[in-house]
Amino acid sequence: MPEKVKIVLVNTTHPGNIGAAARAMKTMGLDQLALVAPRHFPSAECTARAAGADDILARAAVFPSVEEAVADCGLVFGTSARTRSIAWPEVTPETAATQIAGAAGGGAAVLFGRESSGLSNEELEICHAMIRIPTNAEFASLNIASAVQIICYEISKQYLARETGSGDAESPATTGEMEHLYEHFEQTLIDIGYLDPEKPRRLMRRIRRLFNRARLDSNEYNILRGILTAISKDGGKRELP
Amino acid sequence: MPEKVKIVLVNTTHPGNIGAAARAMKTMGLDQLALVAPRHFPSAECTARAAGADDILARAAVFPSVEEAVADCGLVFGTSARTRSIAWPEVTPETAATQIAGAAGGGAAVLFGRESSGLSNEELEICHAMIRIPTNAEFASLNIASAVQIICYEISKQYLARETGSGDAESPATTGEMEHLYEHFEQTLIDIGYLDPEKPRRLMRRIRRLFNRARLDSNEYNILRGILTAISKDGGKRELP
Repeated sequence: MPEKVKIVLVNTTHPGNIGAAARAMKTMGLDQLALVAPRHFPSAECTARAAGADDILARAAVFPSVEEAVADCGLVFGTSARTRSIAWPEVTPETAATQIAGAAGGGAAVLFGRESSGLSNEELEICHAMIRIPTNAEFASLNIASAVQIICYEISKQYLARETGSGDAESPATTGEMEHLYEHFEQTLIDIGYLDPEKPRRLMRRIRRLFNRARLDSNEYNILRGILTAISKDGGKRELP
Repeated sequence: MPEKVKIVLVNTTHPGNIGAAARAMKTMGLDQLALVAPRHFPSAECTARAAGADDILARAAVFPSVEEAVADCGLVFGTSARTRSIAWPEVTPETAATQIAGAAGGGAAVLFGRESSGLSNEELEICHAMIRIPTNAEFASLNIASAVQIICYEISKQYLARETGSGDAESPATTGEMEHLYEHFEQTLIDIGYLDPEKPRRLMRRIRRLFNRARLDSNEYNILRGILTAISKDGGKRELP
């Protein structure tokens, strides 16, 4: 459920941005808003821009620091549209959303920094990774509520895909399973004479890219393993013409 | 290039929304804004909310009707967060973005309707399909600039994936090719004894879902066809143990 995901706005200056962020969250089914030392809250402008998402504002929790806001969260992301001065693991919004939707237990939080200066390095260090929203290199000036909208949209998309996509709520294939699949695939391609065992690299890289992109669930993983096994058996069994 | 994509705002009431939409476009590298009979334009509020995207506003073209705004576009999408009274083909933002980025020649346009009532049925009929942004069923009140942000984000993502993702800028496999692939796949699964020819549906549906999700490029399509052909040949050739 996207409800276990907390959106944390840090030192937001313009009250309109808090309201617009609450509205953005609610359209995507998220409802946990945490505010770290907002300049004005609550306020009439904030409520006006929430345009009906006032229940999110009414329930919003205010904290003095980022540490306290995310104390109950097992997975914490920062956000940025800029390159940072300190190196920190960076992920795309899609990857972060996949990790959030796939996280077992514990809540997840996504931090949005100040309008002017983003997150401080100390706040960044609380984060497991940084979400970098890809923007126009010459105009990276993404409004905070717009950034919240994009992230909540990706999170909601991941939860929807889990609910409706596979229909049977299969868990994603693990990295270990995917490695077994690629080994099995490679051996099968050698067996049927499609892959030169001396130079398997290029073709296998393409196959990895394709199936990594598709993000298999465990049912699909089992189907593909079953097909590969059937190909091997078939090679031995079918009659010569 | 996302530059050939036109964002069309129809009868926008609040000037702030036009400015915020221009800012949202520019962060994602889109710069063609068309306005159909805006209530106020230009205006100080519009420019203030554009927050530096005033070049988009300065270049925005104003039209009296949707027909005229999209006259030079080969592919036109409407947008909606609601269920419509008339049935019209519906696509996700991701699918629309894929089609826009894959469209050869001619421009593409995405229409955003009035704040209060969206697009009229007549305007909808100009569209090839409707983009439905998935929203909270109980709160679908997406601000126009937020909707523009999500659509431009998906479009930009598709262009970026084409530039950097596959590295070799392969064109996507066509729908016709994908149908050939699924027929070939089904026949091969029957040949190796993995698929019961009497009830192929369920398994083939899962396989379609997997490969549709991965959106193959034409090189990947050729690799998979080659593997299927090698499996068939191998079934006839390999020695019995």
